[in-house]
Amino acid sequence: MVAKLPEEEHPKEAFGWAARDQSGVLSPFKFSRRATGEKDVSFKVLYCGMCHSDLHMVKNEWGNSIYPLVPGHEIVGVVTEVGSKVAKFKVGDKVGVGCMVGSCHSCDNCTNNLENYCPEMILTYNAKYYDGTITYGGYSDTMVADEHFIVRIPDNMPLDATAPLLCAGITVYSPLKYYGLDKPGLHVGVVGLGGLGHMAVKFAKAMGAKVTVISTSPNKKQEAIERLGADSFLVSRDQDQMKVATGTMDGIIDTVSAIHPLLPLLALLKSHGKLILVGAPEKPLELPAFALLMGRKVVGGSCIGGMKETQEMIDFAAKHGIKSDVEVISMDYVNTAMERMLKADVRYRFVIDIGNTIQCSS
Amino acid sequence: MVAKLPEEEHPKEAFGWAARDQSGVLSPFKFSRRATGEKDVSFKVLYCGMCHSDLHMVKNEWGNSIYPLVPGHEIVGVVTEVGSKVAKFKVGDKVGVGCMVGSCHSCDNCTNNLENYCPEMILTYNAKYYDGTITYGGYSDTMVADEHFIVRIPDNMPLDATAPLLCAGITVYSPLKYYGLDKPGLHVGVVGLGGLGHMAVKFAKAMGAKVTVISTSPNKKQEAIERLGADSFLVSRDQDQMKVATGTMDGIIDTVSAIHPLLPLLALLKSHGKLILVGAPEKPLELPAFALLMGRKVVGGSCIGGMKETQEMIDFAAKHGIKSDVEVISMDYVNTAMERMLKADVRYRFVIDIGNTIQCSS
Repeated sequence: MVAKLPEEEHPKEAFGWAARDQSGVLSPFKFSRRATGEKDVSFKVLYCGMCHSDLHMVKNEWGNSIYPLVPGHEIVGVVTEVGSKVAKFKVGDKVGVGCMVGSCHSCDNCTNNLENYCPEMILTYNAKYYDGTITYGGYSDTMVADEHFIVRIPDNMPLDATAPLLCAGITVYSPLKYYGLDKPGLHVGVVGLGGLGHMAVKFAKAMGAKVTVISTSPNKKQEAIERLGADSFLVSRDQDQMKVATGTMDGIIDTVSAIHPLLPLLALLKSHGKLILVGAPEKPLELPAFALLMGRKVVGGSCIGGMKETQEMIDFAAKHGIKSDVEVISMDYVNTAMERMLKADVRYRFVIDIGNTIQCSS
Repeated sequence: MVAKLPEEEHPKEAFGWAARDQSGVLSPFKFSRRATGEKDVSFKVLYCGMCHSDLHMVKNEWGNSIYPLVPGHEIVGVVTEVGSKVAKFKVGDKVGVGCMVGSCHSCDNCTNNLENYCPEMILTYNAKYYDGTITYGGYSDTMVADEHFIVRIPDNMPLDATAPLLCAGITVYSPLKYYGLDKPGLHVGVVGLGGLGHMAVKFAKAMGAKVTVISTSPNKKQEAIERLGADSFLVSRDQDQMKVATGTMDGIIDTVSAIHPLLPLLALLKSHGKLILVGAPEKPLELPAFALLMGRKVVGGSCIGGMKETQEMIDFAAKHGIKSDVEVISMDYVNTAMERMLKADVRYRFVIDIGNTIQCSS
């Protein structure tokens, strides 16, 4: 049996930008989307955020990329069609899709609204869907997903600055909640001030924490405090500053995905404090066990969030006026944006204006 | 001011065995104990367990040993004198002292019954007491401590097999409780089957867990299951066995104090599982962040327990008939026992019969 071409395997025409090989260069790509199933929601994509993992994926840096690859898992738009059994959405609703579009719905994690930890969780792109076809992400004009994996975007939220909440937002919101760092009056550190970090500052502040940004870059101080609302700023390479802050934090959200030392961060924690990793360096980090034992500290991980919590996060953001700081770009700027993202030259998230700038060349 | 000799600095004569230098060889040692203060409990030492940390300390392997050094922090005996303000104990009571004899009593940890995490916690030996003198441990004929740091040993407990509970017991009991691994029906792994590990098996079983011992030594299987009551046994070097057990454990108590890989242990955990380190390798362990993120797992530490919890642990052990498996030795066997302990040639704890075998040579 010969595999069908991407543009022929489903009935609905779709158009996006895809990487064709590990050069990672994106170019226009015709493919197709499935017809709206009875539980599906189809929508016109208006904006899609660019996540750092998109960069890894287009270049096959995690070794599992399937080309052609249409990235994008911070996708927002407006509903164009709903299936006969869709209960929660109607045409015209503002909606979003994040990192996943499927799961088993029967494992312990699924039954506890933690589809993100389901062993059969299906990623929004570069994954095999139930029907055996490969999923394509939001760098494209249309999207279709089971309503279970669709979140509602409240009307008062700007769509462009909301898109990154679907990955960057939930990635930091979920651990703040799960690890009990959402109580007013706690002192929360945020390591790394990028797409994830700037969202962590905003969510932790809205939850009532005192927030300290920990960064290698002294020149981010003013921005962290004045623009993002952090209470204080620590230059991680300044040993005097770090020493003064020893034992003062209840928890730290560590967004750095490069190799970095954990010992200085563990030292910032109070007894029973929690260092939460949401970035995944490719090589193992050094874990000084003694530093964990002496204050009963933990190093934990967290990976996005379940659908129920993702909706809760969006509603929390709407209530508190939280949005991502974004640089909106046109579709044809995407390759330049990838290069700039590699250099961390963005404050703090690129969002592609799909609705206005994607153009089918044929 | 000339420092007083150990045998002259306090009014009460005491006799023990001390290491004199980093050879670690112990020999008879005359020193002195303070008079019973108004809140002090003095007792005749009957048994003292030998902890692996005693071995590190006598050889100055942690670089902070003060000679002459009298080790021992698993001390049990019978009360001989109590101060005027002692409320909880009377002469003749069976009592014990564990790893600490003092703390600040005012910090957050102290006020939450977590004296073990007090920054000013005073260790039972090799530490500076409030009066400026150096503390001496339980390899000695008498002991004195503030009643706050004394635990009551219920009458039905054998003193020799109870001594190791004061360090090994509380070291594993406390994390089982704190990290929520004390719920019936959970599956708990125990890595390493030594002084700490064999206690972890017994406590976890008594709490209602299914317990799997994870060890490098296949020849410990029969003993782990038949003698200690473990439900199953995994040879950590057997990749097939380890693979079958992937994702089955709610938590793991890791008692190994040598460098060892964490990734295979993290793989044994279910989502949201907890790997708890109670041993402290001297060099950092390798922490694969990805393995934490993917199942929202944590690596945590724990260090002994507070006084309230230590009493609770002893009472729990009394209720459930839990005791340490010990090899009782005479005082003059201590140097040989140290050598055997270094080779892990003990099942599972040496306990010195101080009451019957310590003899002052003068």
